[in-house]
Amino acid sequence: MSVTWFNGALIEGAISIDPADRGLTLGDGVFETILVRGSKIIWLDEHLVRMKVAAQELGIEFDEAQIRAGAASVSAENRHEVSALRITLTRGVVTPRALTGHGVLPNLLMTLSEINAAQPASLTLAISTIRRNETAPSSRLKTLSYMDNIAAAREVTARADDALMLNTVGHVASTTIGNLFLLKGSNLITPSLDQGILAGITRGKILSLARGLGLTPLETAVRVDDLFSADAVFRCNSLRLATPVTKVDDRLVGRQSIENISSALLKGMTS
Amino acid sequence: MSVTWFNGALIEGAISIDPADRGLTLGDGVFETILVRGSKIIWLDEHLVRMKVAAQELGIEFDEAQIRAGAASVSAENRHEVSALRITLTRGVVTPRALTGHGVLPNLLMTLSEINAAQPASLTLAISTIRRNETAPSSRLKTLSYMDNIAAAREVTARADDALMLNTVGHVASTTIGNLFLLKGSNLITPSLDQGILAGITRGKILSLARGLGLTPLETAVRVDDLFSADAVFRCNSLRLATPVTKVDDRLVGRQSIENISSALLKGMTS
Repeated sequence: MSVTWFNGALIEGAISIDPADRGLTLGDGVFETILVRGSKIIWLDEHLVRMKVAAQELGIEFDEAQIRAGAASVSAENRHEVSALRITLTRGVVTPRALTGHGVLPNLLMTLSEINAAQPASLTLAISTIRRNETAPSSRLKTLSYMDNIAAAREVTARADDALMLNTVGHVASTTIGNLFLLKGSNLITPSLDQGILAGITRGKILSLARGLGLTPLETAVRVDDLFSADAVFRCNSLRLATPVTKVDDRLVGRQSIENISSALLKGMTS
Repeated sequence: MSVTWFNGALIEGAISIDPADRGLTLGDGVFETILVRGSKIIWLDEHLVRMKVAAQELGIEFDEAQIRAGAASVSAENRHEVSALRITLTRGVVTPRALTGHGVLPNLLMTLSEINAAQPASLTLAISTIRRNETAPSSRLKTLSYMDNIAAAREVTARADDALMLNTVGHVASTTIGNLFLLKGSNLITPSLDQGILAGITRGKILSLARGLGLTPLETAVRVDDLFSADAVFRCNSLRLATPVTKVDDRLVGRQSIENISSALLKGMTS
């Protein structure tokens, strides 16, 4: 079962959209993907802060009250243990024809879809030839222009579960759908925000939980070699939380348990 | 007046689209923007070759016969001297939820809109802080994931007509909507295809016309300094053909006439 909400109302089937909507024609919009457990939307405030910052930087109209109302309306329809709430906001239509210009009639779309309640036990990575561009909004912000991530995931699909993307200077950035962490002794290391990464909501939660777990959070540049000297490497995102990485390009990485981090994340959600 | 064709038929008003269509949700599709003069579609074959190559690389279904039929149907409706035909092809819907996977029910959208028949006399450029990523499909192929170009255009909008985008090593790549050429003596110089640029159709036409105009075509890495020692700099794209650049970051560039190139392009269209 899937639920759709579009510009103010729950609807069934297709949506009706202006053929000039810039979300459709130019990937010109922002989105969030949010975990819903029962009828509870996990970390909605944090997702909306990030979405608002992105919309404002890009000059896209952002109506927080409308988004909150839609999210509440959609999540109330959830009949599954665990679902994904996807919020999509487009710039709308720009006239006259130009890349710049103010959008009118932005479209706000929300869909709620069941996801598997069981977390994946682990995942493998392979390094993509497609780099993340640390100068680009599409690497830092959660925009609809997702093609480079799609192409990177497609590139490695025969040999790994997700692609490891480096940035333009060859440092570790993230995967196509999540941030990366390294556990090394008592250090919990993750690429810093200047490395061409999205400021993940789960990434932020893990950093804020670190000291309570006896770990020292460290945001810095990470080299590929660092992955192989770590005690554990894991990916995180809003739907799949923390997932251990077992291999990078078929080379084994450390397998220390991250159960304490996963448990603290789950506890943080339900409190 | 604007004409819309969607999945096989001319329509009025909004289009009806699956809320999970990946063109809308992830900028996952390809497009072409083509000049239409009267009912003549300019360089349609070249545009379709490029679109097919992009779709195939990205694993998006491409039905050339359907696209040709749609383009003919739309262009027959043109009532203006000069119009822009925009062809948008999305991946469609992918299930189960994953970045990879085969798309079903791709959406094919075409719109025809009047554009000003008068070419702009010249334009100014300002250098964007947003670089073009020469490792990324979104820089090489005409995909719907256009956000970085939009952001670059927005960044310079108060001080120039278009943004000059460098690549990640600081070489000249292109503008947000066109390729760049430099005229220097009898050399006609343009960034090579490995510089993070789109293989522009008009760029290709100009390169093929060069020798007939007594010019030596040269595809190479171009430095910012080279712009200021050139006799002329111009931008080209499918709708606006060749437009002289007068300034880069408020600094004057050479103003030798490019009238011979513009005339040869126009002649190539009508022959």
